[in-house]
Amino acid sequence: MSLDKNRKIHIVDTTLRDGSHAVSHSYTVEQVTAIASGLDKVGVDIIELSHGDGLAGSSINYGFSATPEMELIRAASQVVRRARLGVLLLPGVGTIEDLKEARANGAQVVRVATHVTEADIAIQHLKAARELGMMPVGFLMMAHMAPPKKILEQAQIFVDAGAEYVNIADSAGYMTPDDVRARISLLVEKLPIPVGFHAHNNLGLAVANALTAAECGADYIDVTCRGLGAGAGNAQAEVVAGVFQRLGYSTGLDFYSYMDLAENVVEPIMQRPQIIKSAPLMLGYAGVYSSFLLHTYRAAEKFHLNPRDILVELGRRGMVGGQEDMIIDVAHALSLAKTEC
Amino acid sequence: MSLDKNRKIHIVDTTLRDGSHAVSHSYTVEQVTAIASGLDKVGVDIIELSHGDGLAGSSINYGFSATPEMELIRAASQVVRRARLGVLLLPGVGTIEDLKEARANGAQVVRVATHVTEADIAIQHLKAARELGMMPVGFLMMAHMAPPKKILEQAQIFVDAGAEYVNIADSAGYMTPDDVRARISLLVEKLPIPVGFHAHNNLGLAVANALTAAECGADYIDVTCRGLGAGAGNAQAEVVAGVFQRLGYSTGLDFYSYMDLAENVVEPIMQRPQIIKSAPLMLGYAGVYSSFLLHTYRAAEKFHLNPRDILVELGRRGMVGGQEDMIIDVAHALSLAKTEC
Repeated sequence: MSLDKNRKIHIVDTTLRDGSHAVSHSYTVEQVTAIASGLDKVGVDIIELSHGDGLAGSSINYGFSATPEMELIRAASQVVRRARLGVLLLPGVGTIEDLKEARANGAQVVRVATHVTEADIAIQHLKAARELGMMPVGFLMMAHMAPPKKILEQAQIFVDAGAEYVNIADSAGYMTPDDVRARISLLVEKLPIPVGFHAHNNLGLAVANALTAAECGADYIDVTCRGLGAGAGNAQAEVVAGVFQRLGYSTGLDFYSYMDLAENVVEPIMQRPQIIKSAPLMLGYAGVYSSFLLHTYRAAEKFHLNPRDILVELGRRGMVGGQEDMIIDVAHALSLAKTEC
Repeated sequence: MSLDKNRKIHIVDTTLRDGSHAVSHSYTVEQVTAIASGLDKVGVDIIELSHGDGLAGSSINYGFSATPEMELIRAASQVVRRARLGVLLLPGVGTIEDLKEARANGAQVVRVATHVTEADIAIQHLKAARELGMMPVGFLMMAHMAPPKKILEQAQIFVDAGAEYVNIADSAGYMTPDDVRARISLLVEKLPIPVGFHAHNNLGLAVANALTAAECGADYIDVTCRGLGAGAGNAQAEVVAGVFQRLGYSTGLDFYSYMDLAENVVEPIMQRPQIIKSAPLMLGYAGVYSSFLLHTYRAAEKFHLNPRDILVELGRRGMVGGQEDMIIDVAHALSLAKTEC
């Protein structure tokens, strides 16, 4: 694969969205102002800001935001000059009404996120975004759960709905560089619009996967300062900036300033270091949703099983979010199999 | 490259050697006993234990060990059953007398480490190790500083001196997977003995580089629990265990137990989380020794320069350890160039 390294790689910093998981959605207006204006100066292309689970994610299910996200979006919009301000929207969590409000508060980009096989539920939101004058982006989560051809078919739905680029997310942090290569290469080859990639670091491969995506032609790369994010976090922004700069990719980033922002502004806000502990490692190894964890522990206790074995079996069966009640069935089956052995 | 995945990959856990840097060489007999016996049960092949800078590293230059390393080696040798106990030796820091003492205390393997272009200074130590009935290993540090052919030539010196395998180390954490591939592939193709790889995580690529090394035929892979190690640390052992297991490599490791050991025994001992902060990131980006850092800060102050620019220039010029006095010259030159612009 020999692609033009001089093409612009757009950096999407999601410290203020995915990173919000890691600070229990506690961002204040002051923190958002400092981080957003810092990111703007660093030279990122898109600053994503919303509840970690997207617009209107603040809830008993996903955790409440300490400050209403609309207030944070408005604050960021007042300091961002060069970058575009974006939001995430999961249809079903957020609505088109939420999108309108985000637009009114200054959001210019929306990434509409669905499970990797459910792109069609994003169609109306992508069209609404276009009508609102926003940049619409299609975002496929848990992309390890579908083979490249299936992802291409789903991405085509986004293209037809007017998306300006398609982003695939390794939401469980399950992928190896080969998994990324297979998916990104096919999309880049076949799609008429640019492709982006969102990594998670559960297997310690986030930076390598981001690099592989760029090597395979992805034009948009997601990062967060210090790797802040759900589970084991994302690709660490300042590290990606350094690696890309050394390898000659054109990102427009100021590497030194990105390091300073991460160390001096973001790190002091963090509630815990972004390291790979056993729980996210197991989720990445098994390739399952983090929402399975609590249910799995309960089922393991009930059936006297190792919760890790349940997680692996859930991944093997391709369980998706919303199927949490199946965990008991899986545990029961494992328990029977164990008795029979 | 399609190598036999079923071949045994030997895991060398250096939590008790390289990891010792990250705990200021403060390991106690109790800690070493717990970690060594845990690693033995987990199924690693070699447990490396000595001062972080190798035998006799305890000094004002490198930092004193809280407990004499010979005492720690003896303690570990009493609990290790399946694994082999190893030490690191840097000729000039440690001597053959130190090696004899380590042998008497139970060490069975020695990795003799030199700068990537100075393999010849290890010859006598490798031969002495053989005579002592130990497994001699040649270890080339800062392997990013020499092209693959030069490394092959140096590795051949180890082969001739009786090394049982040759290990190359990305001591500065500078390499990308492509850099690893170029070096490991050539050594695996040309050498009559196995090849090993030691990663550092300064660019967030340690796990990916360890994986690349295995893909290219390396038979020995260095790791540490929680990534403990100098600078940004090593390849995180429990993560490597999970990735290798998922990809079908045969390591003989108990992945779940490795996770538990890292989380329950090693993490509580750690003095700081092993994350990628600005200083190690810059060292990895520039490809220079961490011993340059303090001298660089001083020179930067004197010449009103950004220390990061000095580090990059030191890397560009291929400065090596022992050339710290050249830092002033480089700073002076940079300062002149700046004035002329």
